[in-house]
Amino acid sequence: MREIAIIGIGQTKVHEHWGLSIRELATDAIFTAQKDSGRKNFDALFVGNMLSGLIDQQNNLGAVIADWVGFKGEAVKIETACSSGASAFRAGIMAVASGEIDSAMVVGVEKMTDAAPTDVTSALATAADSDWELEQGVSFVGLNALIMRRYIHEFGWKHEDFAPFSLNSHANAAHNPNARLPFAISPKQYTNSAMISAPINLMDASPTGDGAAATLIVPLDSVRGNKRAIQILGSGAATDTLSVHSRKKPLFLQAAYLAAKRAYTQAGITYEDVDFFELHDAFSIMSALSLEACGFAVQGQGPRLGLDNEITPKGGRIPICTRGGLKARGHPVGATGMYQLVEAVQQLRGECGETQVENAKIGMTQNIGGSGASIITHILKVP
Amino acid sequence: MREIAIIGIGQTKVHEHWGLSIRELATDAIFTAQKDSGRKNFDALFVGNMLSGLIDQQNNLGAVIADWVGFKGEAVKIETACSSGASAFRAGIMAVASGEIDSAMVVGVEKMTDAAPTDVTSALATAADSDWELEQGVSFVGLNALIMRRYIHEFGWKHEDFAPFSLNSHANAAHNPNARLPFAISPKQYTNSAMISAPINLMDASPTGDGAAATLIVPLDSVRGNKRAIQILGSGAATDTLSVHSRKKPLFLQAAYLAAKRAYTQAGITYEDVDFFELHDAFSIMSALSLEACGFAVQGQGPRLGLDNEITPKGGRIPICTRGGLKARGHPVGATGMYQLVEAVQQLRGECGETQVENAKIGMTQNIGGSGASIITHILKVP
Repeated sequence: MREIAIIGIGQTKVHEHWGLSIRELATDAIFTAQKDSGRKNFDALFVGNMLSGLIDQQNNLGAVIADWVGFKGEAVKIETACSSGASAFRAGIMAVASGEIDSAMVVGVEKMTDAAPTDVTSALATAADSDWELEQGVSFVGLNALIMRRYIHEFGWKHEDFAPFSLNSHANAAHNPNARLPFAISPKQYTNSAMISAPINLMDASPTGDGAAATLIVPLDSVRGNKRAIQILGSGAATDTLSVHSRKKPLFLQAAYLAAKRAYTQAGITYEDVDFFELHDAFSIMSALSLEACGFAVQGQGPRLGLDNEITPKGGRIPICTRGGLKARGHPVGATGMYQLVEAVQQLRGECGETQVENAKIGMTQNIGGSGASIITHILKVP
Repeated sequence: MREIAIIGIGQTKVHEHWGLSIRELATDAIFTAQKDSGRKNFDALFVGNMLSGLIDQQNNLGAVIADWVGFKGEAVKIETACSSGASAFRAGIMAVASGEIDSAMVVGVEKMTDAAPTDVTSALATAADSDWELEQGVSFVGLNALIMRRYIHEFGWKHEDFAPFSLNSHANAAHNPNARLPFAISPKQYTNSAMISAPINLMDASPTGDGAAATLIVPLDSVRGNKRAIQILGSGAATDTLSVHSRKKPLFLQAAYLAAKRAYTQAGITYEDVDFFELHDAFSIMSALSLEACGFAVQGQGPRLGLDNEITPKGGRIPICTRGGLKARGHPVGATGMYQLVEAVQQLRGECGETQVENAKIGMTQNIGGSGASIITHILKVP
């Protein structure tokens, strides 16, 4: 397989973009990535998106965005719920790696704030199992609350032990101009925030939003010597049962374990070589489960990393969510995986200012669709 | 790029499958393709589907189907409206060609008959431009009617000149046990059928339905000498503006021209080498436009091929829709592109009985999403 690199990145602020349509948001990120890459053309467009059919009454989003960008080549949408962004990125990698094309523009985009909140909740619920979970009336946050409640019971944690995940994300977002909630919060704010679905309170949950993030993928050979190029060292994807109740171990993210294992093997590294980890903190419980499945903590001990101050960009053993994560950068669902990748490139280029991880050479991203059903992991490296 | 082949095929009947869910339909086709291939495993699952979010309240369909099949590897959904099937197939090709995986199961699936017809019409309209076409209240058949009306005006045809397209598809479907409408029709039935959106009448339009079709894709080297293997010789995809009114030449399928050109170049053939052509006759006007864009007729003269009896499997210069096409095999939208590919394999294996094209060595398929916005062409060959 030929070696691949990211040469351009672009992103919009995660925000309530009431003045921009979904195609305009995507185009903003694409044009920024093109400008950043110094290249004028690309061979194919891969779009990661989950909800445009349900919220924007628009399918065929690949062609829609190609049209707006003025591109007539091939364009497709990839959808794996909240991991659509990383799935589109992986499709782009394989297209360039195959030699069929020489450059792939990948954009993750979502526009959620035009719809009523109840409609967004219904739309997000389509990431769960319609026949076996939704029929019971459980929402997506409800499913995560069941997992968190069981985890607390099983391993003896208290709710406030999850606070460091939320505090770290918010503290980091304060330095990210593209973040949805760019401010720090206090432990008291975490504890006292409104309950959504016990034990998940508002500070355990990521906010939705509108946004787009894009990267241009090219063969590594074509950008040798370019200091802005970042190599894609590993890529792995796996699935698990959609229904949480069908899993033998509902507190272990089997697909995260498999996806990370494949990415580590491809990259020829172990978790110990990872300098920072942009993980999928849609809910604070997911931070713990993701860290455990990828080898950074033993099962049941994920919160310990937060309590021991090991997840912060300054001096932490495994800094996570260095630009704010889903919790505070925001979670425009189909775009999130692409934000993680753009942010990882920023870290590896050394462009992260206050939240820069010192001497970061290898970064990992992990995007999750459904309650752990589709998981995609990428490992990036300074070439 | 390594050479690729199809080794297994499977399909369900296109039908009102009220007793089967979307995951069960897909699984039927996948298991049949596995059995046909003689292989027990595959490395990744690519799902082509357009409407599961809107009609079945189910996204993340890759993971849903993987779950039902008992597969834990990577699984994604690809969506490009009615060309989702062929887009998923092309993604599968690139994944195997890259060397990242060694076998890809591709399934196109759609379940449309559980929804009310008006809901299906609304859902299908999301293939058109939501902001610039749907806002005007035009439905998908309405857009095609505008194209057909202009074409008749511009090139001086009469409505009955399109009859051979419909008659050929129905005559061929009579011999296809998986067809939705497996019966021949008479010229009088064509002329007298109910008007839907003038000048498109019921016999110009393809029926929706439930169905799934699947193929297993592997490196050609792994199946050398296997007489059931069919080589994928060329693959091309292109897009055009989503809105028909934005095109300089609304009567010419520019994306079909570009996609076919790329596929011909990759295959090292011209249109004259093609023994049969499974084209996208969602409406009879699309048969004419597709034949013209791909080189089989000059612009404005597509209907001539039908009138001259050149499109039938027995003795026609370029047999089309040999298993019934969209018109009579049926059009379960996201599955259609995969039905075309499965049928092309059947022709090249010589399994088509009454509608077998004699000495068929090279077959072409073309799948269209939107009113010509996303077009994917494949060329298959007996290796």
